[in-house]
Amino acid sequence: AAGIDLLVVSDPANMHYLTGYDGWSFYTPQGVAVPLEGDLLLFTREMDTGGARLTTWLEERQILGFPEDYVQQRDRHPMQWVASELAGRELVGGVVAVEMDAYYFSPRAYEALRSGLPGSRVVDSEELVNWVRAVKSPTELELMRRAAAIMEQVMQAGIDAIEPGVRQSDAAAAIAAAQFRGTEEQGGDYPAIVPMLPTGVGTSTPHLTWSDERFRRGEATILELAACCRRYHCPMARTVYLGDPPPKLVETARVVEEGLEAALGAVRPGATCEAVEAAWRGVIARHGLEKGSRIGYSVGLGYPPDWGEHTMSLRPGDRTELEPGMTFHMIPGMWMDDWGYELSETFRVTEDGAECFCSFSRGLTVKG
Amino acid sequence: AAGIDLLVVSDPANMHYLTGYDGWSFYTPQGVAVPLEGDLLLFTREMDTGGARLTTWLEERQILGFPEDYVQQRDRHPMQWVASELAGRELVGGVVAVEMDAYYFSPRAYEALRSGLPGSRVVDSEELVNWVRAVKSPTELELMRRAAAIMEQVMQAGIDAIEPGVRQSDAAAAIAAAQFRGTEEQGGDYPAIVPMLPTGVGTSTPHLTWSDERFRRGEATILELAACCRRYHCPMARTVYLGDPPPKLVETARVVEEGLEAALGAVRPGATCEAVEAAWRGVIARHGLEKGSRIGYSVGLGYPPDWGEHTMSLRPGDRTELEPGMTFHMIPGMWMDDWGYELSETFRVTEDGAECFCSFSRGLTVKG
Repeated sequence: AAGIDLLVVSDPANMHYLTGYDGWSFYTPQGVAVPLEGDLLLFTREMDTGGARLTTWLEERQILGFPEDYVQQRDRHPMQWVASELAGRELVGGVVAVEMDAYYFSPRAYEALRSGLPGSRVVDSEELVNWVRAVKSPTELELMRRAAAIMEQVMQAGIDAIEPGVRQSDAAAAIAAAQFRGTEEQGGDYPAIVPMLPTGVGTSTPHLTWSDERFRRGEATILELAACCRRYHCPMARTVYLGDPPPKLVETARVVEEGLEAALGAVRPGATCEAVEAAWRGVIARHGLEKGSRIGYSVGLGYPPDWGEHTMSLRPGDRTELEPGMTFHMIPGMWMDDWGYELSETFRVTEDGAECFCSFSRGLTVKG
Repeated sequence: AAGIDLLVVSDPANMHYLTGYDGWSFYTPQGVAVPLEGDLLLFTREMDTGGARLTTWLEERQILGFPEDYVQQRDRHPMQWVASELAGRELVGGVVAVEMDAYYFSPRAYEALRSGLPGSRVVDSEELVNWVRAVKSPTELELMRRAAAIMEQVMQAGIDAIEPGVRQSDAAAAIAAAQFRGTEEQGGDYPAIVPMLPTGVGTSTPHLTWSDERFRRGEATILELAACCRRYHCPMARTVYLGDPPPKLVETARVVEEGLEAALGAVRPGATCEAVEAAWRGVIARHGLEKGSRIGYSVGLGYPPDWGEHTMSLRPGDRTELEPGMTFHMIPGMWMDDWGYELSETFRVTEDGAECFCSFSRGLTVKG
């Protein structure tokens, strides 16, 4: 329907979705070529073809390994080899779509592929497979439920570990151990993002990790974490305060919780992404707050560096209509001048509303 | 000397090297613009400018945040905004070099930047900053030494955890906890790669992580791990066998150790990368073995997905001459039809040879 003759997928999550491939090999070029007709082909570094045999359902003839002497050389690129293999199979000549904004598809790879396919028109696939992934199957939802069961333990391990005088790195260790250990029924896989654990003034900005400084009484710490089961994620954010929290933090926590609940209450099939955000916006505006950035995004299958799916965002202007089986991470983070607050829930769209994957106290956690 | 008027760096390791910036924000576009004269500029998503203020030595005027409504939109790209900001500062018009093979610089970002700089000639920087990073300062070497002290504990934790009947995910949990906990003197940071822990037939291929299957007697497990201190890495690989190892594994372990020691013995300032590999190759050939892939690469500062620096490789054809202060991960992995073996050392080039960062038994570890 998109007028594509050959789709070349580079995003590791899309590769996994199409073939099952799972390995930490995305640091060298790889991908899956999907022709309009005929079998798909997976290409990777020669040494990683063994991993493709072990983790995918592909036949031997569908697995192509580029020679080792193409790795990180200045005078040649693996995508030249890939272009030649595709041309040799007469898969080219029409419209070839590539993932122009995938993390591990570099401009040099793009140029090498394009110049190796002179008879083709190379276009942007515009997250085509990501969009296919938006509505989850029952099996995918089950993996996210297992991740959620791990997530509740992970968050509790993090909250338990944060005490005055404890090193941040020791709390990160407890969190990572809980992420990988998983539950008795289900071991954990590595989430696409490491624990984000900003503390003190660091809570005024997202995306900081940790140091080996010690937690201090009179400071907040944000835990933005996820658990992962077979590459499917359930993220969750909470905030902990050591000591007596200042009134502005207590009040913000209360407003954010009310806003999040209003937004969850606006979720139903047919509602737009922006309508969900508007419900949040209305609540916080009544309390004199505003937030410039989106409050959530589609979530599920992912590899580093992101568990988000790069499709829908809960923000003004996104008029995508919700459908049952879509899954989102709703994370209305508030980052102020020298402090901040985070609370989040991962939910699925049901036939008549939103169902959160986890059950975990939503308020500001106050300790010691 | 490279004829560049403006260098635009996207690799998070290069951004960190130039400015100190440290945050898990590379999943949206960001970079550092380095003009031939004048101050450098860091650009990132608006919400991450707080992280830039907290982690870099930059002045406020050097930190640019692109507006939130540029994030993951189909009709605009943050690099259009960046191009406009650069043009407004009259930094463009000459030769603009970009990192054409950096992980987080997508073809869409490249096209957006290039089309926004119509008066400039955009060229490939060809890992310019990566090459500057090749020789480490005493401070950098000290961070790698601290990572090495953590690494010895990490490997021991991994070996201790692997027992028949233990879930792979529980061993991964013990390893991750040791990585983040660090030593008493130094907490650990997250390595650029999660624990690679292939077991059984999985040892025949690199880059597999773990599952929640249990370790079995009569199977080998490869531990390819690293420790990280303030983004500086010390990787190490070892192999564990549960039960009585088959003679071919014992013999391969012996040959690999001999080959690795010969290669380390060939390291000296002025020796070429390929000469070091040739010393290895000579030893294993005498024992009837061969290996197609490189046996090592420059290592140090890194962010996911790679702790390698994408410059020198220990392989035929790389005639780079070694210099004191260069640091390498020498990892001659042997991957056979349904089994494999790994052993590695991270070393620095000294005034007269190689000095390994870690002190850890090199043989095949046999347990239970």
